[in-house]
Amino acid sequence: MTRVEELDTPSLIIDREKLERNIAFAQARARELGAAWRPHLKTHKCVEIARMQLALADGPATVSTVREAEYFAAAGVRDMIYAVGIAPHKLARIDALNRAGADVKIILDSVPAARAVSEFCRAHQSTIGVLIEIDCDGHRSGLKPRDPEMVAVARALTDGARFKGVLTHAGESYNARSQQEIEQAAENEEQAILAARDLLAEAGFVSEIVSVGSTPTFVRARRRLAGVTEYRSGVGAFYDLVMAGIGVCRVEDIALSVLVSVIGWQKQKGWIITDGGFLAMSRDRGTASQSVDCGYGLVCDVRGRLLPELWVRQCNQEHGVICRRDGKPFDVEAFGLDTRLRILPNHACPTAAAFDRYHVVDARGVVTDVWTRCNYW
Amino acid sequence: MTRVEELDTPSLIIDREKLERNIAFAQARARELGAAWRPHLKTHKCVEIARMQLALADGPATVSTVREAEYFAAAGVRDMIYAVGIAPHKLARIDALNRAGADVKIILDSVPAARAVSEFCRAHQSTIGVLIEIDCDGHRSGLKPRDPEMVAVARALTDGARFKGVLTHAGESYNARSQQEIEQAAENEEQAILAARDLLAEAGFVSEIVSVGSTPTFVRARRRLAGVTEYRSGVGAFYDLVMAGIGVCRVEDIALSVLVSVIGWQKQKGWIITDGGFLAMSRDRGTASQSVDCGYGLVCDVRGRLLPELWVRQCNQEHGVICRRDGKPFDVEAFGLDTRLRILPNHACPTAAAFDRYHVVDARGVVTDVWTRCNYW
Repeated sequence: MTRVEELDTPSLIIDREKLERNIAFAQARARELGAAWRPHLKTHKCVEIARMQLALADGPATVSTVREAEYFAAAGVRDMIYAVGIAPHKLARIDALNRAGADVKIILDSVPAARAVSEFCRAHQSTIGVLIEIDCDGHRSGLKPRDPEMVAVARALTDGARFKGVLTHAGESYNARSQQEIEQAAENEEQAILAARDLLAEAGFVSEIVSVGSTPTFVRARRRLAGVTEYRSGVGAFYDLVMAGIGVCRVEDIALSVLVSVIGWQKQKGWIITDGGFLAMSRDRGTASQSVDCGYGLVCDVRGRLLPELWVRQCNQEHGVICRRDGKPFDVEAFGLDTRLRILPNHACPTAAAFDRYHVVDARGVVTDVWTRCNYW
Repeated sequence: MTRVEELDTPSLIIDREKLERNIAFAQARARELGAAWRPHLKTHKCVEIARMQLALADGPATVSTVREAEYFAAAGVRDMIYAVGIAPHKLARIDALNRAGADVKIILDSVPAARAVSEFCRAHQSTIGVLIEIDCDGHRSGLKPRDPEMVAVARALTDGARFKGVLTHAGESYNARSQQEIEQAAENEEQAILAARDLLAEAGFVSEIVSVGSTPTFVRARRRLAGVTEYRSGVGAFYDLVMAGIGVCRVEDIALSVLVSVIGWQKQKGWIITDGGFLAMSRDRGTASQSVDCGYGLVCDVRGRLLPELWVRQCNQEHGVICRRDGKPFDVEAFGLDTRLRILPNHACPTAAAFDRYHVVDARGVVTDVWTRCNYW
């Protein structure tokens, strides 16, 4: 029996109770909204967690890399959306998965992309489901919800390239400053996708899938607009300080942390030095623009209890510097060499991607499981 | 024969010619300074590159994780310094390497750490070489160069814990704003380490190793002060935009890039969307505080020729947004779907850590080798 304080450091820790609670909350939330939940597996990239999340063993799910699609397909997940605009050279890998029994759908937002997919399907006698990506808030990719170009895109889907529906992501909700702003983002996201659906329907393209989702809008949507068929959300399995900063979760809901060890001190400066640097925490500083800057993370004891006066002020590659938020010196040597601490990350996705495995810890501090991740592309 | 434009994306690319030139420069620089070069292998974590760098097959080298020490020891590197303050629970892994024939030295900066190492050596009848870490510029860990505490630390090394010398790292040189500031940082670094050496020598502790190094100070030191025995430097194998920003290299010396594909556009905004997001580039924004902010990276064509009017303005997990520096719209569709581009990173260390392998490309654009990396801990 290994206890969390016996692990080598840095290690990536999951608090199993919090993970289970977060997943149960998302499942209940989807039921409450009356739509399917298509969890985004990009945050954890882990089969064991996917199995806890998925309604059925074969999906539905969302992925962000072709390698994730391959990894989850090998574990029996069938119904996936690869929710990043397709680069045509990746179609061969998608097609191979679908020929082996999966149903990986892709997204695109332009006539050239639709033509490239159609041409691929014609040349290889393939069938690939396609969603048109809609830009609901200027965040990134996609066509505007009322852009007539989307009809041209749908019409450019020929041969085995099958129009399946529309998809959007309210990415700007991450920058929300109030609950009201998140609720507005959720309303806007759903109205945008329904406008796109309607415009396509008028041209004869019926959307089987009408997909929205970001963790903030999923958690805080006041209602579901009729016609939205599914919600995607990713980081909500773990949550993180950015999500806590916009009020989507509490700090105590964060299920992911990085276990570090004390390796020294700068007594006069009030610094505790740890072996948790930016390769372990990631360089993400997502809380820097929020009302409470959490540096490179907040500090918990080895059992996960927050030490609220501390933060990780800076990181080098393999060094983290913990000090008081108010900068005052304190008895840093009270944290002896090898003391284990758990650091809550700004952003769960890049922090988790820094590791190849999770150590799953129960309420007693016992490591019950080691789960691997599917990193890279 | 695979050409760079045929690789799946994102992929990590090394320009072999530039890598070889950068390594030859560092070797010549060490000769010019008249000291040993102990390259820091943490940037590349790759045996093939280590072999190109090392004076002898067995070292000397610097590492930043115990796993690197294990990985390079398995490839025959013997003389290493693990240049992160030791967490006592890691001594067993260090000891195992040394018993198998390596000579991995450790660093520490406190009496409790010295006692922990001595106690370990006594309990296990081990011998471990120890350097005392000196803080030359307030950057991070280490004792101040004239802190008498270092004699107490040296005295606390007993049993098989063998005092070997002193080590410092001019980390603040990364924030230099001029050549003169880097030269001053180099002078300060060497004076600091010699002061520490002298203080210890007066107490009877003779330093066999007097180690300095940061890429800026190594490249720009005007002279070597007599007594400095070795220089460490890491990022200089690849260089990056942060190094170019402080004038330590030219942008055209950067040997590392991330190959990405065009996946779409936002025409009205003048955005090219790629599949190179922050998991591939890392979240490092090291140039944000420099005089020229490079966003998430500068853009080259597939052959590595800089497209100076462009930059990666923003990244999401698997999306990169390329636009003109002046923000003006342009003919984004001239960069067709699947067009390969190469992105120069802000900071080579975290960007390289996002991948498990390098694709090595020659001047003709042919992939000559695939080299793996030793990630994680």
